[in-house]
Amino acid sequence: VYDATAGCVRIIDQTRLPGRLVLAELRALPDFCRAIVDMQVRGAPLIGIAAAYGLALALRDSSTPQTLAMAAAQLNATRPTAVNLSWALQRVKHAVEDASPPHWPALALAEAAAIAQEEIDACRRIGEAGLPLLESLAGRGPVNILTHCNAGRLATLEWGTATAPIYLAHQRGVPVHVWVSETRPRNQGVGLTAWELQEAGIPYTVIADNAAGALMQAGRVHCVLVGSDRTAANGDVCNKIGTYMKAVLAREHRIPFYAALPLSTVDWDCTDGGRIPIEERAESEVLAVSLCDGQGEAVSRPLSVAGARAWNPAFDVTPAALVTAIITEAGVAPATPEGLSRLRGRRGDHS
Amino acid sequence: VYDATAGCVRIIDQTRLPGRLVLAELRALPDFCRAIVDMQVRGAPLIGIAAAYGLALALRDSSTPQTLAMAAAQLNATRPTAVNLSWALQRVKHAVEDASPPHWPALALAEAAAIAQEEIDACRRIGEAGLPLLESLAGRGPVNILTHCNAGRLATLEWGTATAPIYLAHQRGVPVHVWVSETRPRNQGVGLTAWELQEAGIPYTVIADNAAGALMQAGRVHCVLVGSDRTAANGDVCNKIGTYMKAVLAREHRIPFYAALPLSTVDWDCTDGGRIPIEERAESEVLAVSLCDGQGEAVSRPLSVAGARAWNPAFDVTPAALVTAIITEAGVAPATPEGLSRLRGRRGDHS
Repeated sequence: VYDATAGCVRIIDQTRLPGRLVLAELRALPDFCRAIVDMQVRGAPLIGIAAAYGLALALRDSSTPQTLAMAAAQLNATRPTAVNLSWALQRVKHAVEDASPPHWPALALAEAAAIAQEEIDACRRIGEAGLPLLESLAGRGPVNILTHCNAGRLATLEWGTATAPIYLAHQRGVPVHVWVSETRPRNQGVGLTAWELQEAGIPYTVIADNAAGALMQAGRVHCVLVGSDRTAANGDVCNKIGTYMKAVLAREHRIPFYAALPLSTVDWDCTDGGRIPIEERAESEVLAVSLCDGQGEAVSRPLSVAGARAWNPAFDVTPAALVTAIITEAGVAPATPEGLSRLRGRRGDHS
Repeated sequence: VYDATAGCVRIIDQTRLPGRLVLAELRALPDFCRAIVDMQVRGAPLIGIAAAYGLALALRDSSTPQTLAMAAAQLNATRPTAVNLSWALQRVKHAVEDASPPHWPALALAEAAAIAQEEIDACRRIGEAGLPLLESLAGRGPVNILTHCNAGRLATLEWGTATAPIYLAHQRGVPVHVWVSETRPRNQGVGLTAWELQEAGIPYTVIADNAAGALMQAGRVHCVLVGSDRTAANGDVCNKIGTYMKAVLAREHRIPFYAALPLSTVDWDCTDGGRIPIEERAESEVLAVSLCDGQGEAVSRPLSVAGARAWNPAFDVTPAALVTAIITEAGVAPATPEGLSRLRGRRGDHS
């Protein structure tokens, strides 16, 4: 959140959770770039918001066309997959381009705030759009929802994307139970989603990523509900590595698979998921585990033999054919070019 | 390995790998039970061998029918899924039952040694049976084999089950590269299989369990090759949790899925995999990570928020329909009741 008095953005440092709730202050461009690269800030919508504020504060420090171009390029290069990053930077650039440089800081800051507010509203509407889907699955017991990674409050603000229908269902008295897959290698499920759901008082159970298949085999999953880092115009959903495996298993077991995302996550220029750049992160994320020591400091411990190598893609692409529906702030639609375009048109009515 | 002079069995303590190579000495019944429960000794064939020696040493300490019954029951109760455990205990019981108690220790020890030797031979023959399958996949580059968990030397002796064809191919100059999935929650892939392959000089790359789908999507897997903890008479393969997901994904991508196992792992009385008891292990295996501290001692660190719950099945069942073939010491057969019976008959020719 932006603090106008202090002139900085305060974030929850997600690398310290669930051990400690630490707030970090981002004051200048390098702070924002590092926070995104190191995943102190993560989740597609939040990355976009952070980048918008980063650009605004860079302009506050130096309101020149050179800074605008350089800062936007630097921020855009922090992570390749989430399209919200370039989308939010474009919005800030458009917001200032017709004004003279002295007005840029105020305009950029206002645009960043607008993006943040729109994403919060979008997530709330995602909750409303997704709620009937969960209600339709309610039977005698709770609706068992399998999620992956963290597409919750921590990844956006207030509601989350995939978690928005879950929070809303819980508020409205629809009994829900969430299967939280741990989400190796960075453990966003066991570390972040479990923390969020615990705070919200929503029943959940953590599983190893490996157990998702056995869970479906046992008939204990009513739907899969995930977020997205970038969705192609044809409905292919790019999301945290391991999502694709859950989608294939869901179809095998005739379990609906939903992706919940604000339309800011749709890359309208990307005709299919095969064109989405997939970030490959450090081998050490797989070969070692990061955790907090007794003092709450992050430490890394090896899990493998010295000299081991690893391949560590951060995302995978789930083909649209495996996606039962996409849940957005403009409603629910099939994962097809037509379905998404229809939603895009409808979004226009709201904004 | 049994040391007749010292009167104990020496094992590699697998809970200390890959950090340290520590040998542990098992001298009496409680040592064996604890070693199996705590997974210092693991892998279906090795559990059977350890149990046979445990029973033999229990009889050495007290050669009575009461001890025979009690020790066998205690050992049999250590872990529920691997059928090699009850199979090996039965063999020791049969070996002594027609003799008088004073002869039991020697007979039991001889039978345990025979089981160990037979399993080593079986694994070598599994290698020979599986080699042509790998050779048939060899093209211009190395054969890319995806494995799961540890079905290697550490799980048996000398050759391993799933690794036997890989070791043999490597020896014979067939280029191989192994994708090692980390195998949460106990990390047998990243910790044990990587250690083994590194020792053997076989090229490998570790992946998060979540990355197996993306790897197949990218066309980088030529076959999946795993072991088994218990295989039903109809060809359903029970193996480490996560195997089933890889099998479904393999079929989705038309990649052959092989299970390599000695016939001691087949439960002939079990008509289908749904009847196999699946061990559920401690929640802490998922909610925390065990690793070695600076002094090489095992420590456990939390990964989740306090109060989190987890579901932790240790195995899952891959239906026979997803298994391309089963590789045993008696040859390769389809995963069908007829295929397995034919191998059972053939094993008779050897033993």
